[in-house]
Amino acid sequence: MKGLVYGGPGVRTWTEIPDPVIQEPRDAVIQVDAVTICGTDLHILGGDVPEVPAGRVLGHEAVGTVVETGSGVTGLTAGDRVLASCISACGICRFCREGGYGQCLGGGGWILGHLVDGVQSEYARIPFADLSTYKLPEQVSDEAAVLLADILPTSYEVGVLNGRVQPGDTVVVVGAGPIGLAAVVTARLYSPAHIVVVDKAASRLQAAKMFGADTTVLAGADDPLTTVRALTGGLGADVVMEAVGTPQTFELCTALVRAGGHIANIGVHGKPATLHLEDLWIRNITITTGLVDTCSTPKLLGMLVAGQLDLGHMVTHRFGLDEFTEAYDVFADPIRTGALKVVLSR
Amino acid sequence: MKGLVYGGPGVRTWTEIPDPVIQEPRDAVIQVDAVTICGTDLHILGGDVPEVPAGRVLGHEAVGTVVETGSGVTGLTAGDRVLASCISACGICRFCREGGYGQCLGGGGWILGHLVDGVQSEYARIPFADLSTYKLPEQVSDEAAVLLADILPTSYEVGVLNGRVQPGDTVVVVGAGPIGLAAVVTARLYSPAHIVVVDKAASRLQAAKMFGADTTVLAGADDPLTTVRALTGGLGADVVMEAVGTPQTFELCTALVRAGGHIANIGVHGKPATLHLEDLWIRNITITTGLVDTCSTPKLLGMLVAGQLDLGHMVTHRFGLDEFTEAYDVFADPIRTGALKVVLSR
Amino acid sequence: MKGLVYGGPGVRTWTEIPDPVIQEPRDAVIQVDAVTICGTDLHILGGDVPEVPAGRVLGHEAVGTVVETGSGVTGLTAGDRVLASCISACGICRFCREGGYGQCLGGGGWILGHLVDGVQSEYARIPFADLSTYKLPEQVSDEAAVLLADILPTSYEVGVLNGRVQPGDTVVVVGAGPIGLAAVVTARLYSPAHIVVVDKAASRLQAAKMFGADTTVLAGADDPLTTVRALTGGLGADVVMEAVGTPQTFELCTALVRAGGHIANIGVHGKPATLHLEDLWIRNITITTGLVDTCSTPKLLGMLVAGQLDLGHMVTHRFGLDEFTEAYDVFADPIRTGALKVVLSR
Amino acid sequence: MKGLVYGGPGVRTWTEIPDPVIQEPRDAVIQVDAVTICGTDLHILGGDVPEVPAGRVLGHEAVGTVVETGSGVTGLTAGDRVLASCISACGICRFCREGGYGQCLGGGGWILGHLVDGVQSEYARIPFADLSTYKLPEQVSDEAAVLLADILPTSYEVGVLNGRVQPGDTVVVVGAGPIGLAAVVTARLYSPAHIVVVDKAASRLQAAKMFGADTTVLAGADDPLTTVRALTGGLGADVVMEAVGTPQTFELCTALVRAGGHIANIGVHGKPATLHLEDLWIRNITITTGLVDTCSTPKLLGMLVAGQLDLGHMVTHRFGLDEFTEAYDVFADPIRTGALKVVLSR
Repeated sequence: MKGLVYGGPGVRTWTEIPDPVIQEPRDAVIQVDAVTICGTDLHILGGDVPEVPAGRVLGHEAVGTVVETGSGVTGLTAGDRVLASCISACGICRFCREGGYGQCLGGGGWILGHLVDGVQSEYARIPFADLSTYKLPEQVSDEAAVLLADILPTSYEVGVLNGRVQPGDTVVVVGAGPIGLAAVVTARLYSPAHIVVVDKAASRLQAAKMFGADTTVLAGADDPLTTVRALTGGLGADVVMEAVGTPQTFELCTALVRAGGHIANIGVHGKPATLHLEDLWIRNITITTGLVDTCSTPKLLGMLVAGQLDLGHMVTHRFGLDEFTEAYDVFADPIRTGALKVVLSR
Repeated sequence: MKGLVYGGPGVRTWTEIPDPVIQEPRDAVIQVDAVTICGTDLHILGGDVPEVPAGRVLGHEAVGTVVETGSGVTGLTAGDRVLASCISACGICRFCREGGYGQCLGGGGWILGHLVDGVQSEYARIPFADLSTYKLPEQVSDEAAVLLADILPTSYEVGVLNGRVQPGDTVVVVGAGPIGLAAVVTARLYSPAHIVVVDKAASRLQAAKMFGADTTVLAGADDPLTTVRALTGGLGADVVMEAVGTPQTFELCTALVRAGGHIANIGVHGKPATLHLEDLWIRNITITTGLVDTCSTPKLLGMLVAGQLDLGHMVTHRFGLDEFTEAYDVFADPIRTGALKVVLSR
Repeated sequence: MKGLVYGGPGVRTWTEIPDPVIQEPRDAVIQVDAVTICGTDLHILGGDVPEVPAGRVLGHEAVGTVVETGSGVTGLTAGDRVLASCISACGICRFCREGGYGQCLGGGGWILGHLVDGVQSEYARIPFADLSTYKLPEQVSDEAAVLLADILPTSYEVGVLNGRVQPGDTVVVVGAGPIGLAAVVTARLYSPAHIVVVDKAASRLQAAKMFGADTTVLAGADDPLTTVRALTGGLGADVVMEAVGTPQTFELCTALVRAGGHIANIGVHGKPATLHLEDLWIRNITITTGLVDTCSTPKLLGMLVAGQLDLGHMVTHRFGLDEFTEAYDVFADPIRTGALKVVLSR
Repeated sequence: MKGLVYGGPGVRTWTEIPDPVIQEPRDAVIQVDAVTICGTDLHILGGDVPEVPAGRVLGHEAVGTVVETGSGVTGLTAGDRVLASCISACGICRFCREGGYGQCLGGGGWILGHLVDGVQSEYARIPFADLSTYKLPEQVSDEAAVLLADILPTSYEVGVLNGRVQPGDTVVVVGAGPIGLAAVVTARLYSPAHIVVVDKAASRLQAAKMFGADTTVLAGADDPLTTVRALTGGLGADVVMEAVGTPQTFELCTALVRAGGHIANIGVHGKPATLHLEDLWIRNITITTGLVDTCSTPKLLGMLVAGQLDLGHMVTHRFGLDEFTEAYDVFADPIRTGALKVVLSR
């Protein structure tokens, strides 16, 4: 079969590789029907994730069809149409027993396209298949489902739930990439009074409006602090979500939050930030970080079926499975291409 | 009457000042029966709290007897023996309505010895007296009660409750001053399996043992990381409390916490710290900060009556009310004097 | 002035009574601008609330203008336009300090039109005025605001928050009177996937649809159990709210809830119900009851301003202040009149 | 091998039966080293649990040694010493993914000695072995560990955690059998100010004192309401746990709780109770029920190792594995024998 193979910093090839096989009793092999690319894949290609060796198949977000299951798989059979989630889970370790799949100590967590071969390929091996996949109802399209492999549960759990968004809140999302936009969509489930989105690209702010932002702030041109203070009687935002991953944007979040408010970091960071404890020690703030656990995936699937998640504008570009080269080119240059999520389908 | 008056950086005088009077309908005037000194008073004297003007009477922790009440005070009468808490509360603003007295927007919060004259004096005016004082049961001594003016609720609310200490947890307290020791006492209410205390003074670690620490680590000599990893199968501590207020100790806390754990900052900080988001973004940690709300004060008083809080070793030095000069000298030099809390009584 | 005076079971008169005066320092007197009638007022008139003596002015839901304030009132001045809430709060007792105003031990709680004269009159005395009233923003109409005196916070706090409605949930509301309909409106703030409303009046079910119910069940004609099981794969509802107040409807709620689900009782009950512990002991259910605390009132006001609460269809009949006789007649016979809430305005 | 076989109401026999074998990939077979009898086993023998057919091996609380594992078991190997918990878990269904093992929809839940053969036998098959067993540290004795198969996690999760016991609370436990006593032990982990235990047997109240009860009330002789009111200033208890399983004891619990308090039902009920909603609707109470999920088992094991759970007095009688007849006789007549838990060991 073919797969998208990481060849060291800057090198990616859609090339012939061996078919995946069942290695452990709890494995399944799926045929990949739809797959997408994540900003994290770009980080890997940038050489920022040194634990990924050359030769690794990338990708951790797919929809597929079960081809084969190991003897320890009890909930899946060949032919099942499933979401292959970014997070695998042993289901047995102390974290998994509490639903903390992202921190799995038993060989799961974020492993696909990272510690084992991923899903940007024609077929893929899914470890711990019972807990790492979700059967898809017929009425959910591949394209909608693949958005639930990572960005929807990540924005919902790590952003909205960790940030404790409540009805009537003023919520700020810093960063209007796919994750930030998904945070807007999932924050709206809690009926905040105002959602403010901050980004430095005007086009992404237009997208944010489409996804439900009430107010947008063009970083560089306007001052988010002024906007948020005006909306909150000078107090600051109830919840601020960081969806970029730089020290500057994180520090902006700590400036925007009200006393007693929450800062939920969703961004993937490569550098330390400065935490202004000389101001913050007295302000009763809560800062959370996190890798998604995907414990919300079944709920999100139900909401998709119930028509509660309007994700129509999230997929901006569509490709065939063998067009990975073009798909990466488009996704890696969003300012020029306007790309949010790109989906490659069989 | 006499009071301890701040005269600008480095200057404090026990001197004659006018008697306090009722200024607002919700004020009370109390006779001060017992009073203590806080590390924050030293910060003010160090010139680090610029909003405190010369001429201010210091102090925010006292036990006293009500002398007079304004027309709007409904729950107190002259002769009542009360705890005068470090936090005052209007009771009406959005924060107070939720019990968030520390963030009071209506003129309360930490005002005593800060924005208005404090309680290191023979008599004191207590604004919003109904919500800023707590009637004392007979069986509670002045000396025990005065510890509930600040350090007990602070360590309990900002440390133990914010940190979500649970039975069976491994808890680390960084800093074994009065607040850190009170954090040990109040953390024990939740039956953690291990309490580890880190400090650079061996004498304070001895005190920590007396208050219930299971393990102590002498900073500089031993590596807290090694100790905590050994106790937790390499995972890190469930809860880490910062009770010093320096960048180094805060950063130590973020290194000691396990994935999914809590860092509760109690320390008063004067400088920013470095937050290693490049490590922490993926670890599901929660960092909280806070000024005490004192919402736990009635519960803590009940526990004191029920014999659940053993504070016997916390008061190390006792003085008469007019011995403020000596009391400050002792309190300001704890390494030499072994001082934890000093109490001055009428 | 004139007021609506309870004269013993079945007897109510709009009659001349003495003007209210400030009795305590924390009192205010308001001019009543808009006022409504509650189902509880009918209970009182039915003789079911024996602690209400003949001679009592009824009513606990009004909008008014402050005329005079006692010396202990700090947040209000004559001319302020305020919501007079159904709940008064001393702000000092153990319950009030935690925001539990409904259980106030200091003379508050539900007292208006119950333990002291109420607001169905031209002027009214409001005890503990600072904590029992809410200043109204200009853009909120009297008619919308008066719905926040009782039914909105009651349905939200006692129904939606106690019931822990979450995005994606299946929620059942048993009873489609004003409180049940308000429960539909406020449950939607949490984006449940399905709201099912059960009532025995087809007209009220039509109203429920207008307020956002997805599915309605005509009690007597259809079986709610069949409907709920079909929607939930046989499991039962995540949250069931009781908004009638009879043993039968409560018992229906316990039959409709899923294992692990919540039953939030909002209804006012006069008789005991049967609790089928022989079935329920093993099912991990949570049952809550409660009088509203009104702690959500400021949030709800903010949501009203932000356009998040569509209450347009809740007021079905409008009267002048001196038309209390007609207003009660209409409100007491909702099947004939289609009345939901009736508002009387100056 | 031999096993204790249910032969229909009133009939139990320690008799020769076939050895258990691996039936499913996720099964394990254990050698039973220590096992105990539960009150539920007596209910089954009384004919009250009709889904248990004649021929079933009883028992759901054991410590054993793994003999064989199915191909889908990844965390256990032959020779491992394990706790066999009363709850099995598929780990895949919606409840298991949230740690709600007791409500497992995938074939788990309480099945041992109920829907499949149990552990009162020389060997036993354990379905879903990875999630239904817990490896035992060396320093934990069989006798202590077997108490964690049911009564400790049940009292802790269904009583203490559901009841939200907090430091300083007044807690009432109604019923001083093994579960009630375990509720006393585990409630103490949260440092309540007072634990009151109510039972009709003076001997069990003596045991309650030994396990940490502060006050005991002999039902029939003394009035628990008077005792609790005296302890709580007339308010009632913060938390009341039902550990008997009769309508009378449940109704007593609802009379003892304060406004805003929690009633945690632990008892197994065979009949409905009367819920006095005419009193309770206004009192903001929370009632919970539940089968244990055993999610706390690893924490409880850690506390046992840390010396935090003193269970020394819980096992009153010890037998050999082939003395089941005598053991049942002793356990079934606790008033005469003083039996709490009886343990049978190889």
